[in-house]
Amino acid sequence: MTVAPARLDAPAPLAWDGARLRILDQTRLPGEEVVLTLTGAADTAEAIRRLAVRGAPLIGVAAAYGLAMEVAREPAVAALERGAALLSGARPTARNLSWAVERIVAAALAAPSADLAVAARAAAEALHREDEAASAALARHGADALEQVLPGDRPVTVMTHCNSGALAASGRGTGLGVIAELADSRPLHVLACEARPLLQGARLTVWELRRLGIAHELLVDAAAAGLIRTGAVDAVVTGLDRVAANADLANKVGTYGLALAAHAAGVPFVAAGPCSSIDLRLPSGDAIEIEERAADEVLAGGVALPGTPCRNPAFDVTPAELVWALVTERGAARPVTAATVAQVA
Amino acid sequence: MTVAPARLDAPAPLAWDGARLRILDQTRLPGEEVVLTLTGAADTAEAIRRLAVRGAPLIGVAAAYGLAMEVAREPAVAALERGAALLSGARPTARNLSWAVERIVAAALAAPSADLAVAARAAAEALHREDEAASAALARHGADALEQVLPGDRPVTVMTHCNSGALAASGRGTGLGVIAELADSRPLHVLACEARPLLQGARLTVWELRRLGIAHELLVDAAAAGLIRTGAVDAVVTGLDRVAANADLANKVGTYGLALAAHAAGVPFVAAGPCSSIDLRLPSGDAIEIEERAADEVLAGGVALPGTPCRNPAFDVTPAELVWALVTERGAARPVTAATVAQVA
Repeated sequence: MTVAPARLDAPAPLAWDGARLRILDQTRLPGEEVVLTLTGAADTAEAIRRLAVRGAPLIGVAAAYGLAMEVAREPAVAALERGAALLSGARPTARNLSWAVERIVAAALAAPSADLAVAARAAAEALHREDEAASAALARHGADALEQVLPGDRPVTVMTHCNSGALAASGRGTGLGVIAELADSRPLHVLACEARPLLQGARLTVWELRRLGIAHELLVDAAAAGLIRTGAVDAVVTGLDRVAANADLANKVGTYGLALAAHAAGVPFVAAGPCSSIDLRLPSGDAIEIEERAADEVLAGGVALPGTPCRNPAFDVTPAELVWALVTERGAARPVTAATVAQVA
Repeated sequence: MTVAPARLDAPAPLAWDGARLRILDQTRLPGEEVVLTLTGAADTAEAIRRLAVRGAPLIGVAAAYGLAMEVAREPAVAALERGAALLSGARPTARNLSWAVERIVAAALAAPSADLAVAARAAAEALHREDEAASAALARHGADALEQVLPGDRPVTVMTHCNSGALAASGRGTGLGVIAELADSRPLHVLACEARPLLQGARLTVWELRRLGIAHELLVDAAAAGLIRTGAVDAVVTGLDRVAANADLANKVGTYGLALAAHAAGVPFVAAGPCSSIDLRLPSGDAIEIEERAADEVLAGGVALPGTPCRNPAFDVTPAELVWALVTERGAARPVTAATVAQVA
């Protein structure tokens, strides 16, 4: 069964034809729209590692297909386990990646051994369909929650960080999916943060907003907090990568600063993602492993002296008390606490 | 009288030989050390506008010399007033620029008309000497204040933003001067934020820290708040561009986010600058004019789609209550309030 029709002329960030996974190489956007064909666990893990495919939900979907393709090639438990280890280890912070791999492994192992590959593929396709449904549902929940507090008598300005749109999850995405849903029914202006060092906001969110026809401006990450303070922003909406049991959440580095500024200004800060990002095994955000990426990402462009040492955390942790609503496919949890997270998990 | 010996082999950011002002073109650092010779108000204003010379105190010094050179060429009140308007209008946010111009104008107008040029030059040289003395004094005050609270039993990590060193003020600078003073007497590690879009942290602060032999790492601006939250930072020290009567202050865009994060983590946030940055005419930070620069600064590098609209505020406002100490040449004001600012102004 084919889940997502191959409509790469759109182009879709990810398309499954029943045997091969094609992805839009996000490292080449917005300049070039290059489609890569993936065939197994190794090339899928590598595509995830180098961010050719990215976004917490989407790397879960990609990893599920990567593992399904691996066991289609070699329908054996050894291949399943080897592929699972490869894919789970590709990036550490987003819960969705290991969650997806665990789902495929469990489904494959539960099937008779002759059906291992068929079961893995069916599980990956089901996971993909669920992510599409989750995106659609959470976008509606997030928009509904914000509609209750946003001013109704003027266009609103929503700030977002990095990219949490159709390039980061199925359908219209998570944070940017909420924003697109709002934009369907009211005039809306987006302030998009660049998201240094790899500039997924500048490269990907701007590309998506232009295709969606949503008015937008780009800003450097450091300008976000000050603009929120001046009253220029009605809401801040982002995606998320992992939510701990106490409702602290990890998201793209810079999210914490936006949440602090939004809280200080009384502006609602909404984090949106599927329940597959929730990780009740971790007691708090401090237990979330934060991926530290290579210095050359910071030094790219060559403006600093060669050999300059760098810190390059790709994520940060936002404490639950700064989050106005945690939006999943099951609704908008408010207030954001251990109790409300346990309800939706 | 020559104030600063021309030791551009150092190279100094600014050198006055009694007749001409030579500046290190900071837009070319760290790749190239290019010295420009300025001769009057117009080229000095242009150098300030395009950030060849920058930093709140240093653009005050440069403007003072620019005006002195202008009236040396044409010793008339008309030239004085025309040059003053040109220089004051070059950039809006730092108080030091208009303050310096006002000082030179007042000194020139107070002299007999035959001595207008001599008086302007003497006033510029005096202002430069005062800025050197202020830098030295405030560095000592800031270091003394921090020594009272920093742990004495281990190396400390200090975060800074943009550039507030020898390239931004006379002597060793303001914020970075405080850090250099601390580093004279204890092991110290600096976390330097890039300061997008023009990357004065990556280009200039890293260059200065390497020359000073102070250990450092570079990070993207968005990583600052999260690192402060994790306890990786013992103090945050920055410069400042203008302080209002209620002690709110404007500094390089991104400073507010650092101050918020430092306050939330109980980490001292120190803003350092000469009293010439204090502007008691403005009741609060909201009255400070925030320079909005061209979109092409944000779009440079070409990663976003051409024609993308941008917001590009160069500064933001940090409310007084987030500032642990406001350090000037007259001491470290604590707590930071309208009353303590009035005392040092």
